[in-house]
Amino acid sequence: MFEKCLTNVRSAAPLVHNITNYVTVNDVANAILACGASPIMADEPDEAEDITSICAGLNINIGTLNQRTIQAMHRAAKKAASLGHVILLDPVGAGASRLRTQTAADLLDNVPFTVIRGNVSELKALAIGSTTTKGVDADAADTVTDANLDRMIDFVRGYAKTTKCVIAMTGAIDLVADADTCYVIRNGRPEMSRITGTGCQLSGIMTAFVAANREHPLEAAAAAVCTMGLAGEIGWKYMQRGDGNATYRCRIIDAICNMDAQTLRAGAKYEIRRNQ
Amino acid sequence: MFEKCLTNVRSAAPLVHNITNYVTVNDVANAILACGASPIMADEPDEAEDITSICAGLNINIGTLNQRTIQAMHRAAKKAASLGHVILLDPVGAGASRLRTQTAADLLDNVPFTVIRGNVSELKALAIGSTTTKGVDADAADTVTDANLDRMIDFVRGYAKTTKCVIAMTGAIDLVADADTCYVIRNGRPEMSRITGTGCQLSGIMTAFVAANREHPLEAAAAAVCTMGLAGEIGWKYMQRGDGNATYRCRIIDAICNMDAQTLRAGAKYEIRRNQ
Amino acid sequence: MFEKCLTNVRSAAPLVHNITNYVTVNDVANAILACGASPIMADEPDEAEDITSICAGLNINIGTLNQRTIQAMHRAAKKAASLGHVILLDPVGAGASRLRTQTAADLLDNVPFTVIRGNVSELKALAIGSTTTKGVDADAADTVTDANLDRMIDFVRGYAKTTKCVIAMTGAIDLVADADTCYVIRNGRPEMSRITGTGCQLSGIMTAFVAANREHPLEAAAAAVCTMGLAGEIGWKYMQRGDGNATYRCRIIDAICNMDAQTLRAGAKYEIRRNQ
Repeated sequence: MFEKCLTNVRSAAPLVHNITNYVTVNDVANAILACGASPIMADEPDEAEDITSICAGLNINIGTLNQRTIQAMHRAAKKAASLGHVILLDPVGAGASRLRTQTAADLLDNVPFTVIRGNVSELKALAIGSTTTKGVDADAADTVTDANLDRMIDFVRGYAKTTKCVIAMTGAIDLVADADTCYVIRNGRPEMSRITGTGCQLSGIMTAFVAANREHPLEAAAAAVCTMGLAGEIGWKYMQRGDGNATYRCRIIDAICNMDAQTLRAGAKYEIRRNQ
Repeated sequence: MFEKCLTNVRSAAPLVHNITNYVTVNDVANAILACGASPIMADEPDEAEDITSICAGLNINIGTLNQRTIQAMHRAAKKAASLGHVILLDPVGAGASRLRTQTAADLLDNVPFTVIRGNVSELKALAIGSTTTKGVDADAADTVTDANLDRMIDFVRGYAKTTKCVIAMTGAIDLVADADTCYVIRNGRPEMSRITGTGCQLSGIMTAFVAANREHPLEAAAAAVCTMGLAGEIGWKYMQRGDGNATYRCRIIDAICNMDAQTLRAGAKYEIRRNQ
Repeated sequence: MFEKCLTNVRSAAPLVHNITNYVTVNDVANAILACGASPIMADEPDEAEDITSICAGLNINIGTLNQRTIQAMHRAAKKAASLGHVILLDPVGAGASRLRTQTAADLLDNVPFTVIRGNVSELKALAIGSTTTKGVDADAADTVTDANLDRMIDFVRGYAKTTKCVIAMTGAIDLVADADTCYVIRNGRPEMSRITGTGCQLSGIMTAFVAANREHPLEAAAAAVCTMGLAGEIGWKYMQRGDGNATYRCRIIDAICNMDAQTLRAGAKYEIRRNQ
């Protein structure tokens, strides 16, 4: 199934409209190109509707938001919703400032998101008002472990039910769920957290995956998570003496670029938990 | 001739003012440094005139434009024109939104550009109102091929005549023309389109090339195109197993950095078509 | 001492709020992660206070400033000052436009900076109104050499006394001083100036170093300078045939990532000049 999702991205090459932060935007664009889709970035309110109209998916990332780009998010999302496009929310730093938490909440009130992708701290900030986030990184207390796995799966499925979205909660163990089914994914490496923007890149390619697989948003989101995590594992194998986080950053995008269906099928590590 | 253009960039080291998108801005800066010039980025209207005054060239790129940066473009361009500076327009995504198309049109109405550099879809959107652009990438229908080459050369020369600019239309085959003469350039590799920003980088170094070769804007623009395309060929030779678009992105800038006159002379692939 | 400063960054992992330019922001984030700290970027005035409140240090870089981000700088700095946080000013391009010079001056009038880090041209523009800056790079006339070393040390110590800040003036020879003591540092390589943003990266990691070593801001700032310069030397050793400034950029951040206490102790090249 996952390899079919990847193949569909490569053949459909969906155009993805990104309203995203300026920290990691170049990596998001190259990651989207690497997976076979096309990116366009645009955050001026006066062109938000036009740009999103020619796209298949909209990726809204609230890192380095400002009052102008918040307007663009709302205008683009309203248009994308009216066209039935895939819309993803990446609530970067929700919990870190009232503006970010409120902006994410306002968007959730008004936009029929297809997927929400964030770390544990961000999603807890939105779902239950917890604010233990450490800036844009998940708080150490907010880790999914084998010990708390059942409880976290319940949380993610519950939040999926409340929001009517696919929820992708990423960290050491990734959970991707709708109200009934949860993919528990164990790809990736801890060193990925030493690079800025692996989460942003994942949101970008996830928008492309879901846009190219409209009938299967849960599987497509999970496939994107496996693709990114597996790319982190493959990229790490190419690391040599003297290499660090800057080279690793390139190696991960390279591995997305070279990912093929067979590699993804062989390397994806996940189990499926269904509601009894 | 081309190698002399490169040598002049290295010796004059012109300072280039860039008002450009935040997606590829870092690569634009490093590409300008790689070719031997110096970049400065500034898009606040209140400093646009001051910044451009200390430069030799102005590179206006309308990707991720907003109402503030559009003001900065006009103020910088007016000042640069009054000082007789080289001014380049890169109409990123013209045709993709009314705001981009209109912004490019307004700039063309008011600014004596030296060069316009874009892909086929963008230039057609400006010249004849065609809007088949696929976001920021050229539409597949808009490819220069050997079959339509004569017609495309006529189009580019005609648009150069209308605008009184050098026109650089880049793609699988690159055309760089004034009203009389067209360079048909066949450097580069198709994999360059899997990297975001190779066009933006080219606009940056082209501004430097033309600024350092004021008497020969056509040749300088063509030399920049050959330099970039040849860098794409050389960078590709260094690609190893596991490398993808992120590493290729570095390799191309590296190759610009290491380009010397002899390599450029030996590697440039072009013919010149003159009006009969 | 320097190695202890590095170890403290790694163990404290301070969160650094960056209001910085969009040209080099990704490298700043990855450099901060490489040294063991955590970055957050935020430049909307309406969240500036919230974001800086959860951080340990504030890095204000005026490259690509605009009227909105200038407001954010003031609001964040006022809050950071009230909380006793470390605050660093990087006056990118001071002297290149009246807006940049005035913004830096306004900030200096209102904010109790801990450290100011800039190149010679920028610091001269602020201290004595000299405006020989070549854009964002130091003017060639503004080089610290063995011939003018004593005079430059006096200048830096004098400016440190006037501003009550640690002054880090970086170039071929780096000077880091308070009113009494000056570190003269000779790490680094000239090729670092062919990469955009090594100065910005240094300001980012310096904020982290000083935040993790609150009792010793002078030593911490000097340790950051040695770390960056030494990373430039180590990164250069890994350069291979065909590599240029883009690969070198990655290699430097990689070397920061791999820096350990022993390497820093063995590689730091400096002398200490104390006021007699």
